[in-house]
Amino acid sequence: MTYCVALNVRDGLVMLADTRTNAGNDNVRTFRKLHVVEQPGERVLALMCAGNLAVSQAVVNLLTDGVETERGRETLRDAPNVLRAAQLVGHAVRQVYQVDGEALQAQNVSFDVSFLLGGQIAGGPVRLFQIYAAGNFIEGGPDMPFLQIGEHKYGKPILDRALTYETPLEDGVKLVLISMDSTLRSNLTVGLPIDLLLVRAGALKVERQRRIGEDDPYFRMIRERWSSALREAYQGIPRPEWS
Amino acid sequence: MTYCVALNVRDGLVMLADTRTNAGNDNVRTFRKLHVVEQPGERVLALMCAGNLAVSQAVVNLLTDGVETERGRETLRDAPNVLRAAQLVGHAVRQVYQVDGEALQAQNVSFDVSFLLGGQIAGGPVRLFQIYAAGNFIEGGPDMPFLQIGEHKYGKPILDRALTYETPLEDGVKLVLISMDSTLRSNLTVGLPIDLLLVRAGALKVERQRRIGEDDPYFRMIRERWSSALREAYQGIPRPEWS
Repeated sequence: MTYCVALNVRDGLVMLADTRTNAGNDNVRTFRKLHVVEQPGERVLALMCAGNLAVSQAVVNLLTDGVETERGRETLRDAPNVLRAAQLVGHAVRQVYQVDGEALQAQNVSFDVSFLLGGQIAGGPVRLFQIYAAGNFIEGGPDMPFLQIGEHKYGKPILDRALTYETPLEDGVKLVLISMDSTLRSNLTVGLPIDLLLVRAGALKVERQRRIGEDDPYFRMIRERWSSALREAYQGIPRPEWS
Repeated sequence: MTYCVALNVRDGLVMLADTRTNAGNDNVRTFRKLHVVEQPGERVLALMCAGNLAVSQAVVNLLTDGVETERGRETLRDAPNVLRAAQLVGHAVRQVYQVDGEALQAQNVSFDVSFLLGGQIAGGPVRLFQIYAAGNFIEGGPDMPFLQIGEHKYGKPILDRALTYETPLEDGVKLVLISMDSTLRSNLTVGLPIDLLLVRAGALKVERQRRIGEDDPYFRMIRERWSSALREAYQGIPRPEWS
């Protein structure tokens, strides 16, 4: 399993991915699920993936080497805007399906993959897309300032309640770390370390990229403070008069 | 879908069930999923159900009319202890499967049902069980002071973080209402009104049973206070030094 979450707020993007992959509970490994394409001053794109690891790596390889489209050979490094980059991810997914789909079906392996692509390219706004296994996609926005792939349920309530499009980027970092912590506690197939990325709107570069492991002092502090803050918060709510 | 949650803490039981059933998104109805058997001073048992409504109602009917077992005809009103009551629920599930299982399979309907049974019978302790579609079951306890059936993921993080076996009953009420609210916000197939039940250890009677709808002032207050408390709580956490 996987948990990836991306915030698309007024100030920019916050993206966070875990690194655990498992082929059965007895075969657990660490793989990077956050891939960054950066040309400072010109573009910054980040792609996070969930689902079958062989499929998602094949898609990433195609996007790096070049996807054959009606316009020729295209990569994320030369997409003219983020929408085209999302279309390219979709193209790559469909090409991998054409090549591997039948063989996967013969082995009873589902073609299960999804992506979050966020970023900014000079001349355009920050955009965030979720790309499906069919290669089509949706876009987040002010009404829906976060998108998730993988094991999304445990980490959703905190985002539903606390995140808005106006949330500052640094507060967004706290929220995605809390959301990830809720998921890590409940699903063993989501695991540390986690990869965090910050992109400030207009900067056209990575503001911060950080791998966070068990010993990261800030993440440890969040985990401890959050649990005690929740306990205090619910204890502060009056008891029902009818109790 | 359904969300039912039961706390089994030192002080007693808190049980909460939603009431929404749906056969497709365009066929939504309200059905009670919390069933109480009370003989004050002698026994109090509460059964909550999730899954196929026809199956769970058939099980409840059998438990009311009497399940034929190797000991004769037994109901929840004459089970000598809570363990036997849980076994009876299991018997009833298996009998319904014997009668309806094949016909359901012919219609491609899965035999999908689960129960939470909590209570106390004179001479024994408070106990809480989760009964599966196979009729077997597990018991909660101090290490696992809550059990859930149905759509359990959204409402689990708050319980994981804040609930312990020592949590007072009245605080347990707040926690299950918060847990339910998180679920209601995220899954439209879980819906109001909700049925709440409190049983204090040793009382051998229902302490409080309450149907909570949209207009319940206490639930409204919890929904509002909790969201603002969470916002304050995460805002109170220091920003990372590296941001």
